[in-house]
Amino acid sequence: MARLVVPIDLKKKPWEQKYPLHNRWHPDIPAVSEVKGGELFRVEMVDFSGGGITNKETAHDIKYADPSIVHYLSGPIRILDEDGIPAKPGDLVAVEICNLGPLPGDEWGYTAIFDRENGGGFLTDHFPCASKAIWYFEGIYAYSPQIPGVRFPGLTHPGIIGTAPSMELLNIWNERERDVQTNGLQSYKLCEVLHSRPLANLPSPQGCHLGKIKRDTPEWERIAREAARTIPGRENGGNCDIKNLSRGSKIYLPVFVEGANLSTGDMHFSQGDGEVSFCGAIEMSGFLELKCEIIRGGMKEYLTPMGPTPLHVNPIFEIGPVEPRFSEWLVFEGISVDESGRQHFLDASVAYKRAVLNAIDYLSKFGYSKEQMYLLLSCCPCEGRISGIVDAPNAVATLAIPTAIFDQDIRPKTNKAPLGPRLVRKPDVFKCTYDGNLPITRNPSAT
Amino acid sequence: MARLVVPIDLKKKPWEQKYPLHNRWHPDIPAVSEVKGGELFRVEMVDFSGGGITNKETAHDIKYADPSIVHYLSGPIRILDEDGIPAKPGDLVAVEICNLGPLPGDEWGYTAIFDRENGGGFLTDHFPCASKAIWYFEGIYAYSPQIPGVRFPGLTHPGIIGTAPSMELLNIWNERERDVQTNGLQSYKLCEVLHSRPLANLPSPQGCHLGKIKRDTPEWERIAREAARTIPGRENGGNCDIKNLSRGSKIYLPVFVEGANLSTGDMHFSQGDGEVSFCGAIEMSGFLELKCEIIRGGMKEYLTPMGPTPLHVNPIFEIGPVEPRFSEWLVFEGISVDESGRQHFLDASVAYKRAVLNAIDYLSKFGYSKEQMYLLLSCCPCEGRISGIVDAPNAVATLAIPTAIFDQDIRPKTNKAPLGPRLVRKPDVFKCTYDGNLPITRNPSAT
Amino acid sequence: MARLVVPIDLKKKPWEQKYPLHNRWHPDIPAVSEVKGGELFRVEMVDFSGGGITNKETAHDIKYADPSIVHYLSGPIRILDEDGIPAKPGDLVAVEICNLGPLPGDEWGYTAIFDRENGGGFLTDHFPCASKAIWYFEGIYAYSPQIPGVRFPGLTHPGIIGTAPSMELLNIWNERERDVQTNGLQSYKLCEVLHSRPLANLPSPQGCHLGKIKRDTPEWERIAREAARTIPGRENGGNCDIKNLSRGSKIYLPVFVEGANLSTGDMHFSQGDGEVSFCGAIEMSGFLELKCEIIRGGMKEYLTPMGPTPLHVNPIFEIGPVEPRFSEWLVFEGISVDESGRQHFLDASVAYKRAVLNAIDYLSKFGYSKEQMYLLLSCCPCEGRISGIVDAPNAVATLAIPTAIFDQDIRPKTNKAPLGPRLVRKPDVFKCTYDGNLPITRNPSAT
Amino acid sequence: MARLVVPIDLKKKPWEQKYPLHNRWHPDIPAVSEVKGGELFRVEMVDFSGGGITNKETAHDIKYADPSIVHYLSGPIRILDEDGIPAKPGDLVAVEICNLGPLPGDEWGYTAIFDRENGGGFLTDHFPCASKAIWYFEGIYAYSPQIPGVRFPGLTHPGIIGTAPSMELLNIWNERERDVQTNGLQSYKLCEVLHSRPLANLPSPQGCHLGKIKRDTPEWERIAREAARTIPGRENGGNCDIKNLSRGSKIYLPVFVEGANLSTGDMHFSQGDGEVSFCGAIEMSGFLELKCEIIRGGMKEYLTPMGPTPLHVNPIFEIGPVEPRFSEWLVFEGISVDESGRQHFLDASVAYKRAVLNAIDYLSKFGYSKEQMYLLLSCCPCEGRISGIVDAPNAVATLAIPTAIFDQDIRPKTNKAPLGPRLVRKPDVFKCTYDGNLPITRNPSAT
Repeated sequence: MARLVVPIDLKKKPWEQKYPLHNRWHPDIPAVSEVKGGELFRVEMVDFSGGGITNKETAHDIKYADPSIVHYLSGPIRILDEDGIPAKPGDLVAVEICNLGPLPGDEWGYTAIFDRENGGGFLTDHFPCASKAIWYFEGIYAYSPQIPGVRFPGLTHPGIIGTAPSMELLNIWNERERDVQTNGLQSYKLCEVLHSRPLANLPSPQGCHLGKIKRDTPEWERIAREAARTIPGRENGGNCDIKNLSRGSKIYLPVFVEGANLSTGDMHFSQGDGEVSFCGAIEMSGFLELKCEIIRGGMKEYLTPMGPTPLHVNPIFEIGPVEPRFSEWLVFEGISVDESGRQHFLDASVAYKRAVLNAIDYLSKFGYSKEQMYLLLSCCPCEGRISGIVDAPNAVATLAIPTAIFDQDIRPKTNKAPLGPRLVRKPDVFKCTYDGNLPITRNPSAT
Repeated sequence: MARLVVPIDLKKKPWEQKYPLHNRWHPDIPAVSEVKGGELFRVEMVDFSGGGITNKETAHDIKYADPSIVHYLSGPIRILDEDGIPAKPGDLVAVEICNLGPLPGDEWGYTAIFDRENGGGFLTDHFPCASKAIWYFEGIYAYSPQIPGVRFPGLTHPGIIGTAPSMELLNIWNERERDVQTNGLQSYKLCEVLHSRPLANLPSPQGCHLGKIKRDTPEWERIAREAARTIPGRENGGNCDIKNLSRGSKIYLPVFVEGANLSTGDMHFSQGDGEVSFCGAIEMSGFLELKCEIIRGGMKEYLTPMGPTPLHVNPIFEIGPVEPRFSEWLVFEGISVDESGRQHFLDASVAYKRAVLNAIDYLSKFGYSKEQMYLLLSCCPCEGRISGIVDAPNAVATLAIPTAIFDQDIRPKTNKAPLGPRLVRKPDVFKCTYDGNLPITRNPSAT
Repeated sequence: MARLVVPIDLKKKPWEQKYPLHNRWHPDIPAVSEVKGGELFRVEMVDFSGGGITNKETAHDIKYADPSIVHYLSGPIRILDEDGIPAKPGDLVAVEICNLGPLPGDEWGYTAIFDRENGGGFLTDHFPCASKAIWYFEGIYAYSPQIPGVRFPGLTHPGIIGTAPSMELLNIWNERERDVQTNGLQSYKLCEVLHSRPLANLPSPQGCHLGKIKRDTPEWERIAREAARTIPGRENGGNCDIKNLSRGSKIYLPVFVEGANLSTGDMHFSQGDGEVSFCGAIEMSGFLELKCEIIRGGMKEYLTPMGPTPLHVNPIFEIGPVEPRFSEWLVFEGISVDESGRQHFLDASVAYKRAVLNAIDYLSKFGYSKEQMYLLLSCCPCEGRISGIVDAPNAVATLAIPTAIFDQDIRPKTNKAPLGPRLVRKPDVFKCTYDGNLPITRNPSAT
Repeated sequence: MARLVVPIDLKKKPWEQKYPLHNRWHPDIPAVSEVKGGELFRVEMVDFSGGGITNKETAHDIKYADPSIVHYLSGPIRILDEDGIPAKPGDLVAVEICNLGPLPGDEWGYTAIFDRENGGGFLTDHFPCASKAIWYFEGIYAYSPQIPGVRFPGLTHPGIIGTAPSMELLNIWNERERDVQTNGLQSYKLCEVLHSRPLANLPSPQGCHLGKIKRDTPEWERIAREAARTIPGRENGGNCDIKNLSRGSKIYLPVFVEGANLSTGDMHFSQGDGEVSFCGAIEMSGFLELKCEIIRGGMKEYLTPMGPTPLHVNPIFEIGPVEPRFSEWLVFEGISVDESGRQHFLDASVAYKRAVLNAIDYLSKFGYSKEQMYLLLSCCPCEGRISGIVDAPNAVATLAIPTAIFDQDIRPKTNKAPLGPRLVRKPDVFKCTYDGNLPITRNPSAT
């Protein structure tokens, strides 16, 4: 039976937990627990917002969500080998996800679109309004009263799992992200297309939580100013939002500090590739049952430093054996031409944006609002692929949707069927107004 | 039994065939055959190079390949409904791929890296030399003497399938691609990263073949100057290089000219997502057995114009039921930080480049050269996914490789196994020198 | 969140539970709970032996297990529609298994061979000794210290799920099973081959438990003499031991009494097709999360009475979407010729027996004892198929084993590999002596 | 490219072919070709009836089919290793099926029910009339005008592949099958249930073809009297009718005579587990592309003699990677109680019979005749499983049908859907009268 090394009491705030949570990456955030190689242990976690977003029937909590507090993580957990010797920098930690799920008694989640002035998402220029759908779980299945006619099994996974960075790695992160924030708008035309979102989120004491480190101490002040935000995935793993890190998968994480200091959080009942609406998975509280093994010297043995330092690595992983199985897929294509008709050069992000827009538009013909489908494609087990990345100037990306998640046949019909499409679905997602001034992208061809 | 509507005689040149091939898109290239709705018909095709690239044990044919002649297509085929009335602009044509394969007696293919000065590929800044591997087919399997220890079943598909553009659509293509060629280097910083490749390939009479249109006529001259190159995928489908367009898949193509004028070619025995080395699939000659149905008014009914005109659409498709099945995958991650350590903003292309580089480096530890692995990842059934596209500033892309294609266990070992890795594999791919002056990207951390 | 309608306290005996368990089928065993259509509810259950078989490192509990007490079931549960009106005879109840698993804190199980004098199993004439292996669970995986080198994900399911029979159906059962017990040895030559096992288990007050019905009452005495044993699967479902009744599956059960009176138990972490060693699944305690819907008049609408009365039906079901996924299988064949060389006529049982014997013998070459492999093939996710049932006189049955469950490559090698087979595995299953007098079947060709 | 070692000319009779076909097993039938280890070679074959059954729209050819001529086999092929040394008794031959399919230009097949007096089938007591459906192929798909609303991808395979028996093995076969024919009705009560089919088919010169051996010679006379019929699968493989022996599978066949003498035939475009109607696959002509390797001494190393002699073995095989993939299945159960209500003891054949009857009855509610569904379940990719074989007295067998092969939703509905079931399907299979006197089994509960 798994030993519970990080318990969560859902009636308490993230900072009131037995092992207070943290929402930053820093080598000096102290470990709260220790595990041995081969031991099965259990980590519980709050949803990424720490309860800030609720199952109330409104999107106001989304509209006014505080982005400075994401993501509340459980840990760090110090990893020892079977003889009690801690992981060392240069090792790999093989972390097997033996099981996971929602916290018992808390079987629900939410998928949301942030307001464009407050975080936005992949299609924020089209969908500037804060919106929310609530999902309820029936064992392996999720359904939402706000998106009727859809039900699917979860490919549940932690959005975030990673090791603590060393100071050297942390400095690399802060420097390069400061650079993109300062110079990005000039250098990266993409920014213009993926309108108006924050280019980076630099360290900031606001909203910062550092686990066992006491607030209002010099140490807290120092770390809070240095500690990296948890939003992007990086060399340590982190917020990679890889939907296939589910039951039975095994992640090989690099070790940068003694003990590895594993943290995890941002549990997703299900997510589509890309997590397009940003708050786009079915976000929930949950638990992981994990088993770790240390591969001594494994970073050099197996990982690839690809950049200026040996720290410029990425984790690798194996996929588990019990992913939901679908056999029929409807696939949408996108090329790297944007909605204004402008040609981009081999840009997979633009191509994927178009594939997602195409899918939303198509599905909305079957009785749904576009916001319903934007949320659905964020959280259902759809596959986003880079199909062609060499045929200049067009990258081709595809989005494959399992047709079995719908209660109607959503495939094109060569002969008109007597049943569906165009069933009117009355309920819709919860939605707020958009009060900002940024221009909304309209599909010039929309009626 | 399928009616043969486009035969190929491999002893003849592309322009000597009974129905001479074409390698441009233009509404005025006349149809060579006609098919009726519901009829099973067979189209044969040369490899994309029309025999220019051979199974000789050298990469010289790659180094000096003529890029102006790609891709030789079979067709156009005029599509009628069951009453003999042709498809009309605004219709959809549902094309089912009932079967496909290599041409009998020609069961081999090749995968290559173009010289950097002659087309390059996704990693051309790392791999500037022309290289080639030859693949032989044993029924469903391919193997290459140049990449020993690897064998896999093909997910065979046509790299190109598409309908003819109308003049209006052709003008849109030419204009936007001229714009990227003229202004791209200034506007798109990505160009700098995906070094020095042609930004676009504009219409050009050089190397042009227009099927039944006679050369040295005014008509030929006009069309040759207008007709779009076949390299990028576009609104009409075309060179989408989607590896899942295999047996049993069904493609819904928009119709822009009367009769639809379907063309196809660039057969791939197998390809990995992205086709990263550009000449990266296992290129071969082959045949398709197809069945078409017309959905009258289907463009408006099912497709989404997403851009300035109703022509700004993309095809959709359904995946077939007999794709090769793998259950164990090793997955590599990449984030949008480039090899120099520079941060890019939510750039899936950069993230995918890094994932591919990581995979090549990892696999080369198992006794392979990096060129061998670059070619392998171009053509084996690997999956390239956009995992996270919202966690600013990092896009996360993943590359999943089925472990069963190797004759050794390529997974990291937590305990050292007695067998493999690091088997020395003596053969290598055929390789030329790189005689250009462009700087080669070196991984700063490579030894 | 699922409402707990049958709780289990593992510290108590089956008959001490809040809702005392039953181990017989009878219309007069009163329901302990009620559920409504569409409601998600949770049923907990003991292992089939009610704790009689333990994780002690001995097979004595197997050798002296009391067969009269199997299987302790949870329920009956009375099923109402959404308006509170109970299911009626002639209806179908669609039972969806939304989730299931071991009881928290009790994550272990066992697989055993009964002594030949005490129940035996499919190969009891070869393996007369009581034997046992203990399995521990790590989330989705099970491993046994007694069968090293093997680990697999569970296809967890209830061995038993069924509705209460009406008196009419119960009488049919008792009559036909009494007949086989009386006349079977004369009529069914198969009995001779599947040596010496009980032909049937008729109603008997010994070991009988009837839920809320008080012992030592006239009612108890009457019901105990009439109530059917739970060992065979029958028209009401019951002990069908179908390994695919796992997460997400949906069973359509016929209703014979008002309220349907659903009972369930005999939880299996995993089982191979056939459950060949009889106590052959990984037996455990567990829970189900279920959702029921009533299809009024569904028996007539959907089921097939195939026999003398409208009660001669069988349930149907749909398979769920998250079964473990394997891609490589090694398959053993058997034909209906028995170990003595005698020819049987299209007998799938004999053919399957031979396939299982073939597989045990083969696998024992890789460092295992035959008892280890007999137990493994009983409980791992292997597939038993009837391949040919018409080619007189031989039925052909196959047994397919997923190769990924072993830590060595168990496939035949065309070239001798340096690693494995023939690793000596020191541990073995726990085993007792066989003290009976029945002759043991020896493979005449064994050395 | 595969070397053609056994060509077929469909305009000729089986005995007029370049390498005349044989339809018996005997060590003295001489090899017609030789292949080397590792070589890719092609074997062509007629349909099992050698053209006797045609695509004429009648079932008369079925009713009066000559059972003495089945099955026309291609070969024998003598197998050498890479040094030219033949396979020897005691070796294994690993035969990989690299590819297979219908013969080009002959893309059609048939599925039939034999008349009860002329071979019958698994349900011959229910369906005594000769019946036939014709299937046409569209690449990977088959459809039949006689069974509208159904279309499925083939899991194509040879019904028969095997090596020649030695005289010793042949004598074993003839002796045990003579015994069952002589004594079967007394010993095997199953015979009574699977009514009135031939218990065995003993050697007989009638209809006999022996390849290169000239008719009317003493040799022919001797061999014809000794040679085994090809109907049952046996130790040498033979007519195992295992539907999973498809593309990419690898069969390990025992060698009994020098050179192995591999023969193959009875190509099936598709077959369901059990091939229940006997002529139940989609029978066709076809080709195999094979590759062989010899494992010296492999019988002892890998196979299991399970019987009185070392010849009592069975082949083993690995499944290939491109089987059609389905995710939704509707499953029917059967228990070993027969249609009269009689209890049988752990009899998987009786249980499977009931599962098939249940499925036929169910599906016939969706607008089909029972003969249509009997034929469909014989040939579609359905799975027949032995689920429980220990729970005395009931064996439980299941039949799983992929729902995607139907153009209507055949699952039970908890709420009445507006579309289907009960669509009337006008066409039916071709059917003859039954002119025999045997009683037809009627389901006593049928209306």
